[in-house]
Amino acid sequence: MYDVIVVGGGPAGISSAIYLKRFKLEVLVLMKDFGALDKTDHIENYYGFPSPLPGRQIVDNGLSQARRLGIEIRTEEVLNIDKLELFKVKTNQNEYEAKTVLLATGSNRPNLRIPGFADFIGKGISYCAICDGFLYRKQTIAILGEGEFMAEELEILRNFTSDLYVFTNGKQLSVKIEGAKIITDPINSFVGDELIKAIITDNNKYPINAVFVAIGTPSATDFALRMGAFIDNNMIVVDDKFMTNIPGLFAAGDCIGGLSQIAKAVADGAIAALALNKFIHSKSS
Amino acid sequence: MYDVIVVGGGPAGISSAIYLKRFKLEVLVLMKDFGALDKTDHIENYYGFPSPLPGRQIVDNGLSQARRLGIEIRTEEVLNIDKLELFKVKTNQNEYEAKTVLLATGSNRPNLRIPGFADFIGKGISYCAICDGFLYRKQTIAILGEGEFMAEELEILRNFTSDLYVFTNGKQLSVKIEGAKIITDPINSFVGDELIKAIITDNNKYPINAVFVAIGTPSATDFALRMGAFIDNNMIVVDDKFMTNIPGLFAAGDCIGGLSQIAKAVADGAIAALALNKFIHSKSS
Repeated sequence: MYDVIVVGGGPAGISSAIYLKRFKLEVLVLMKDFGALDKTDHIENYYGFPSPLPGRQIVDNGLSQARRLGIEIRTEEVLNIDKLELFKVKTNQNEYEAKTVLLATGSNRPNLRIPGFADFIGKGISYCAICDGFLYRKQTIAILGEGEFMAEELEILRNFTSDLYVFTNGKQLSVKIEGAKIITDPINSFVGDELIKAIITDNNKYPINAVFVAIGTPSATDFALRMGAFIDNNMIVVDDKFMTNIPGLFAAGDCIGGLSQIAKAVADGAIAALALNKFIHSKSS
Repeated sequence: MYDVIVVGGGPAGISSAIYLKRFKLEVLVLMKDFGALDKTDHIENYYGFPSPLPGRQIVDNGLSQARRLGIEIRTEEVLNIDKLELFKVKTNQNEYEAKTVLLATGSNRPNLRIPGFADFIGKGISYCAICDGFLYRKQTIAILGEGEFMAEELEILRNFTSDLYVFTNGKQLSVKIEGAKIITDPINSFVGDELIKAIITDNNKYPINAVFVAIGTPSATDFALRMGAFIDNNMIVVDDKFMTNIPGLFAAGDCIGGLSQIAKAVADGAIAALALNKFIHSKSS
């Protein structure tokens, strides 16, 4: 059992893990990839580096720094987090328990550039099956996605309806799905009036009542939403100690909004670590 | 005339200057020394460095980074800042004008470890001649210090009394002083009842009514105080955009309190830069 599971191996997560480890806490970092910095090849505004360097280099430096301090880092994709007495973190490979969780996965909630998508968010397009699925009981529900995250969300939606579509939007399905119609055509548009009414592909028009987005892997916002954390404008709401409204669930970095800069993520992580340390000690005393 | 004068060449100041320069603003950084990091020889919790490194190395890296971006950095000691239409920044070598000032000098207000010192802060011991000098009109005033900063403060105190003592507390006087009694004995204690009454040295007891502290060089808090900025518990009070109550006067890093960590100072600097940029553009439009 860990004191803290940090979800995310970028600046916010690793900065926090470094502080947490120095507080002698049991920390596990779970990361699925190198995040947004992996695509940035020229960083010159993060203090302390005389010459510009690629984002990937900074992430690698951070991981080396963490490993040198003995921090456990695993490359596993988090699929779900449950809050019972403890937090149960389920990945594609294992299940872990922790007293607290720090979400530091960056801002990766997919925003599809398809006509109509943005218009129907909250009007039939949802990011959270467990939050909104019951609204569409016995109706026609579409889910967007292609992998394990989609399959997890689909299982939840089965509780509400059997009239299910999976839209992979041109991608290869990477999981085996039964009991749902699979549409692999690229999506051309989402249409409706007040609410969404249909998905239009190259070859067809599919009348639906709701669309759930479960593309790629779940974002921090998805985990937070499902646990009942407050979300504002797609960002996780935290207090000045970086804790959400769920006791023990913290968030830092891009997923809480503010300046999308390494400097800010690193500071978030450090300050969150202090608050986590305090929280854990207040619980164990 | 500069858009921003940054006072301080540490993490907060340089991080801010880097962002400001990239916003194409005219920036000048004034620094007197390498700050608190110069005395730290093993930093391993600032994100992005695989191996621990000396604080001085990080400061040097930051200065190289800033210079590579073409930022003007001068090693001059700031003696005074005045807010008129523009800010006038007086150093030991020059006088500069700027639309805005960012104080990022770290937390260097001297806290003397002499019996009685802490007890009489606010009870006769003051850090600001221009704020409190008039309270002791025609009374006996002592000033603690040995250099140019002390001489500047002494000039202000002459407006209120001619009964002046300079206590160097064992240090060499580095400026020429007239019209004040110079005491170079080390101070043993500060004594009094409700208010301070006397300074006791190895050789003597000096009855006084007030003590003004002007040791070393002025801290950001001293500048801010003199301009009428709000100070709370020795820290400069700023809003969420890092601006003080004086329009155009910003502060970041250790001098505003919070976590005394590089990570936090660097983030402060970055966020303050965004706010400075916005402030400058709102004024010039």
